[in-house]
Amino acid sequence: VISTNAGGTAVLRFGNTRAFVLGLEVVVADGRVWNGLRGLRKDNTGYDLKQLFIGAEGTLGIVTAAVLALHPAPRSRATAWVGVADVAAAVRLLATLRAALSARLVGFELVSAQALAISRRYFPEYADPLPGVPWSVLVELEDSGTEAALAAALEAALAEALEAGDALDAAIAGSLREAAAMWALRENIAEAQRREGPNLKHDIALPVSAVPEFLDYAGALLDRRYPGVRFVVFGHLGDGNLHYNLSPPPGFAAEAFLAEAPQVARIVHDEVAARRGSISAEHGIGQLKRDELVRHKAAVELDLMRSVKAALDPRGLLNPGKVL
Amino acid sequence: VISTNAGGTAVLRFGNTRAFVLGLEVVVADGRVWNGLRGLRKDNTGYDLKQLFIGAEGTLGIVTAAVLALHPAPRSRATAWVGVADVAAAVRLLATLRAALSARLVGFELVSAQALAISRRYFPEYADPLPGVPWSVLVELEDSGTEAALAAALEAALAEALEAGDALDAAIAGSLREAAAMWALRENIAEAQRREGPNLKHDIALPVSAVPEFLDYAGALLDRRYPGVRFVVFGHLGDGNLHYNLSPPPGFAAEAFLAEAPQVARIVHDEVAARRGSISAEHGIGQLKRDELVRHKAAVELDLMRSVKAALDPRGLLNPGKVL
Repeated sequence: VISTNAGGTAVLRFGNTRAFVLGLEVVVADGRVWNGLRGLRKDNTGYDLKQLFIGAEGTLGIVTAAVLALHPAPRSRATAWVGVADVAAAVRLLATLRAALSARLVGFELVSAQALAISRRYFPEYADPLPGVPWSVLVELEDSGTEAALAAALEAALAEALEAGDALDAAIAGSLREAAAMWALRENIAEAQRREGPNLKHDIALPVSAVPEFLDYAGALLDRRYPGVRFVVFGHLGDGNLHYNLSPPPGFAAEAFLAEAPQVARIVHDEVAARRGSISAEHGIGQLKRDELVRHKAAVELDLMRSVKAALDPRGLLNPGKVL
Repeated sequence: VISTNAGGTAVLRFGNTRAFVLGLEVVVADGRVWNGLRGLRKDNTGYDLKQLFIGAEGTLGIVTAAVLALHPAPRSRATAWVGVADVAAAVRLLATLRAALSARLVGFELVSAQALAISRRYFPEYADPLPGVPWSVLVELEDSGTEAALAAALEAALAEALEAGDALDAAIAGSLREAAAMWALRENIAEAQRREGPNLKHDIALPVSAVPEFLDYAGALLDRRYPGVRFVVFGHLGDGNLHYNLSPPPGFAAEAFLAEAPQVARIVHDEVAARRGSISAEHGIGQLKRDELVRHKAAVELDLMRSVKAALDPRGLLNPGKVL
């Protein structure tokens, strides 16, 4: 978790794993153990070394212990499924909810109609809360106050969005069971897509405001090259992080489509790079994206990374062949 | 601000400067410019280089531009001055308020009676909201809801603390002017102490739960060595960050007391280190604390820092003589 700087559906509120790590114990390349197990919110005594090891995929040291910051458990939750006309409307909805609900807004997950259809095809027990909307947003709130106050705040914020035309319709979960069913629709997408057959996955991040334009441009380019390609787009719009997965056009052989992976990735990643996005928001570099990393990082950035790697692991012992 | 990873009175809610920095542009030691001006919430593409430059006091590169994360402006605020019997009670009050108010709690500033007295001696226009309490906490809240809802939440949380015996009394600011006067009491301490005469300052951080014990132990040791020494203790208790300032005992010549600075710092910092605290929470290392840094960091940590410095600035051109 720490070495990949893992994220999830609550990054919008709480940040990635990096935001939770107060201290680390790390075995470094010469075999010594660095005990940096501090539990401090503030510490400006030299370089913040723990930051180096978080997300380094084990290439700079091996994390063996950590001190994590915790948040008090919430006392109330609310969940809503909101239909929007397009992704630009979803981005406006996000701004409205952040302004109205501040840190109560914990999750803001985008689901395309295609992604929802695939999820429901393999898990038909979960009903579509708002049939017919082209895009949906799953909104999750948490607070320390009462359920009633949180529900009222959510209703007021959604009413504002409906009035502004940014939301088409909204369904608020009336029970924990309904909330869990909404989350199941979202969380089953990946498994449903696996059952559906081979597809090409991309884990990208963009400035939130650039997401609509990216989807237009990348979608047009891919559809031109692979007419009828099926876009299964979902993810953490609150963080600008999309899972941009492509299933082959009807009649396109699965193996032939998978063989297109490098060409498809290039189209997707070039459109991401054109908007100063990330070609790996959550999933890291590993071995799979080493070549793409070199394509997308400037020489000075790669040189800095290599300098750090050489300084901390001069003999290249730590997770060799990964990242750099 | 970025090169010192500056903090302030809202770190409790929003984090240090590091938490705001999404991207940086940095001139590195060989004269090249690294353009890392990304505006992403998630980006796991190799080492998170910006973390190296934040708080490095200019010793690894010169920050020339940044992309910062912003939060929506709050729509409501509330301010309260709370009297507590001791610092242990203040720590319990913090836990109560965090659980009850979650992210609405923006500031939690501790002020000792001595610190308050000095502040009022030089700025008598600001009245003491709760005369006679041994310790005070200045509580600041922000929210996106109404002023009335926020005031009600604050009153409920304070009532809980009063009932539990953790708060002795509380005054809620009834206007912006009253809130500003409460903040003036807190913010004038540093200037008042400067006018009062020479004093020895320490900017320390501790795990919040260790603050009461630290104050007991360090206070006893210092009072034994310098009988009558005056403790001016205040700061960001929500982050475990105290400004632990000492004025000379009555009759102790100012110059003679200032000459004790290394001995005093050693006592303070050893008690901090015994509780895994930080000898520089906000103010960095610079030149003043280089020797203390070497005393308090393990060899492996210093070696890692020196490796990073040598890797990024092999000729030692960047802010020489600072930090390391």
